Amino acid sequence: MATIDRMLGRLVRRGELRVIDAAGRLHDVGTPDPGRPRVTIRLADRRVGLDIVRHPRLGAAEAFIDGRLIIEEGDIAGLIDLIRANGAWEKPGPSLAAPNPLRRHWGNARARLDRFNWGAKSRRNVAHHYDIGDRLYDLFLDADRQYSCAYFTDPANTLEQAQADKKAHIAAKLALKPGQRVLDIGCGWGGMALYLNRVADVDVLGITLSEEQLRTARRRAEEAGVSDRVRFELIDYRDVTGVFDRIVSVGMFEHVGPPHYRRFFLKCRSLLADDGVMLLHTIGRMGGPGTTDAFTSKYIFPGGYNPALSEIVAASESVKLIAADIETLRLHYAYTLKHWYDRTVAARAAIVALYDERFYRMWTFYLAGARAAFLHGGMCNYQIQYIRDRRTLPITRDYLADAERALHARG
Amino acid sequence: MATIDRMLGRLVRRGELRVIDAAGRLHDVGTPDPGRPRVTIRLADRRVGLDIVRHPRLGAAEAFIDGRLIIEEGDIAGLIDLIRANGAWEKPGPSLAAPNPLRRHWGNARARLDRFNWGAKSRRNVAHHYDIGDRLYDLFLDADRQYSCAYFTDPANTLEQAQADKKAHIAAKLALKPGQRVLDIGCGWGGMALYLNRVADVDVLGITLSEEQLRTARRRAEEAGVSDRVRFELIDYRDVTGVFDRIVSVGMFEHVGPPHYRRFFLKCRSLLADDGVMLLHTIGRMGGPGTTDAFTSKYIFPGGYNPALSEIVAASESVKLIAADIETLRLHYAYTLKHWYDRTVAARAAIVALYDERFYRMWTFYLAGARAAFLHGGMCNYQIQYIRDRRTLPITRDYLADAERALHARG
Repeated sequence: MATIDRMLGRLVRRGELRVIDAAGRLHDVGTPDPGRPRVTIRLADRRVGLDIVRHPRLGAAEAFIDGRLIIEEGDIAGLIDLIRANGAWEKPGPSLAAPNPLRRHWGNARARLDRFNWGAKSRRNVAHHYDIGDRLYDLFLDADRQYSCAYFTDPANTLEQAQADKKAHIAAKLALKPGQRVLDIGCGWGGMALYLNRVADVDVLGITLSEEQLRTARRRAEEAGVSDRVRFELIDYRDVTGVFDRIVSVGMFEHVGPPHYRRFFLKCRSLLADDGVMLLHTIGRMGGPGTTDAFTSKYIFPGGYNPALSEIVAASESVKLIAADIETLRLHYAYTLKHWYDRTVAARAAIVALYDERFYRMWTFYLAGARAAFLHGGMCNYQIQYIRDRRTLPITRDYLADAERALHARG
Repeated sequence: MATIDRMLGRLVRRGELRVIDAAGRLHDVGTPDPGRPRVTIRLADRRVGLDIVRHPRLGAAEAFIDGRLIIEEGDIAGLIDLIRANGAWEKPGPSLAAPNPLRRHWGNARARLDRFNWGAKSRRNVAHHYDIGDRLYDLFLDADRQYSCAYFTDPANTLEQAQADKKAHIAAKLALKPGQRVLDIGCGWGGMALYLNRVADVDVLGITLSEEQLRTARRRAEEAGVSDRVRFELIDYRDVTGVFDRIVSVGMFEHVGPPHYRRFFLKCRSLLADDGVMLLHTIGRMGGPGTTDAFTSKYIFPGGYNPALSEIVAASESVKLIAADIETLRLHYAYTLKHWYDRTVAARAAIVALYDERFYRMWTFYLAGARAAFLHGGMCNYQIQYIRDRRTLPITRDYLADAERALHARG
């Protein structure tokens, strides 16, 4: 009893958590925190606590998905937010004083096994997440199905607006000229490729490893009457040939894996014209190299890894790609995920009908957990603009705002 | 004979080089290159060629400084530009195919010995370069003595304009508010500190290890009547205490040395308020970690090292400083160095009177070599904006252009 209360007390100081244990006893911890309502959870059996102590995130996730950890007051987003806010990344523990190379070594060695995404494995990993039914993505994404961090010029903007602004923000950094050839690595359902063709009069090759994405993307290009200028292929980036004036890759690098970073950039460099520009948009971790958490690896993105900026840059500079501009989007993904979570909750009945309650709970845990990682954990989103030749692009960044304004006008 | 011509022919393909050897024989190599005039050099004795083969850059530098390598047509800037342009960084050799970890390991081990800049050694290194006489810096820098990369909104701008624009560009990234406390690490002759106080009504502590810089900076603050708000101290950054709203460091990080990067950032983090902003302006190398060339180490910046972005970021992220924005200034330092070189040449008589011909030749070699490294080699200048809390600074970068405009108006 006392032990449980002490443990819970360490977990939650600000904000209120009530735990009803398997014997029906109440444990109240924390203090009222304005704007953060109390969360009450019920543990259906005695194993839940032990599972969580053994594997904190995975144990809690599986207990919640299985329905053994039940939220009686509040919701899973509130529970995760409450716990993560109490261990916020900005308030580092003693780990800041000195790095532990041995621990990092072992952590990395363990994680390294998971990071080898060879051809066939890449396809399986992609199918695991993206081929689970187009219908699901309609239910929580924006109409253009942008499945990556949006760009909020105002946190109050709608998701549709923020995703449109994201496309313009990226297009501006690509410094596009009419008639240029663009490669979109990890094109999703084709939204970015179609947008770039429409606003900048460029030809785009979009590539994906997801058959469902490919079908949808091709259909959209046909419906827009641009399938001669916006083509989509089911092909690994390692197998692409040719030379492109521009390369864009949005939310795909998270699937590459650190052992492949150098080869990824070497391939991109070889596909990029001498005066080419590349824009990499990827989730990142702000506190240096780490490991993917067990829940995400097991349920959401097998083989996925969110890179530290030092890992990205070490690889890209080793192949002489010049990082001309790096922008760290800090809170934008938290805003994006809030929209996705709210839409998921609103679509509960439809999602349960498509899959089942377990899937619905898993999906809400994933989105709520990811949001907390961007709000309180070490996650962010990097936009890195690469060039091969230092003389490419204007010498100052003033062109970016001008280009963005012009793109909004063409929108 | 044939061997010399073959070697020279590999060195220079585009552009024309004429070498008059110690026996008076002419060796013409290369092909005409519009806009790059022919350079003719005379080798005064037979040892010069051998020295250059043994230690290419240092051998050539010392032969030039000693007057054993004489420029008969063109100037040292033309000679260095000719040779560096023929081996431009953008056209990488086979080294791109696969990294050689062993070579990197040994290179690093060798260089590491040079990189330990402890307190007393830091002071000696600083005195070597910065205490050689204030008068020299008046002869080739702008009137405000900005001894770091300027910011050219137009390559045709004057040096005075570009240095003023650099200060505004940096001030904008600091997002200053009146009354804030600013720490300027490596304040030089005080120009940045005085500027920030003047345009943003902030209090500044500028620190330097150079006694000559300190004297000049203090005198300028007194003359401006702001010595109560802009203070200067002769103190190592490791010994500073207190908390600052903003930290700026321009052209000082090059003296820190990789073994100290983590401690540098840890110290900066501890000096920075929770909602603080830091702007680091430093030379960088675009192709990954490397070593300082022998000429620069021996004659110009003992203990100096220009970091790869991956080295900077690996250290700063390990202490949880968030790199909110990174801008790579590619050609700006080449433009800056052209101005410094031209002013040095124009001030030849005065510099020779202050020192001697050897010093003058060394200084022109340094500036011409540095310019070529930014134009054809792997050097650039990074501006990295750091925050501790992801909620600091607006969520988009749109504020930067607005702030810069406002600063120019206040000028």
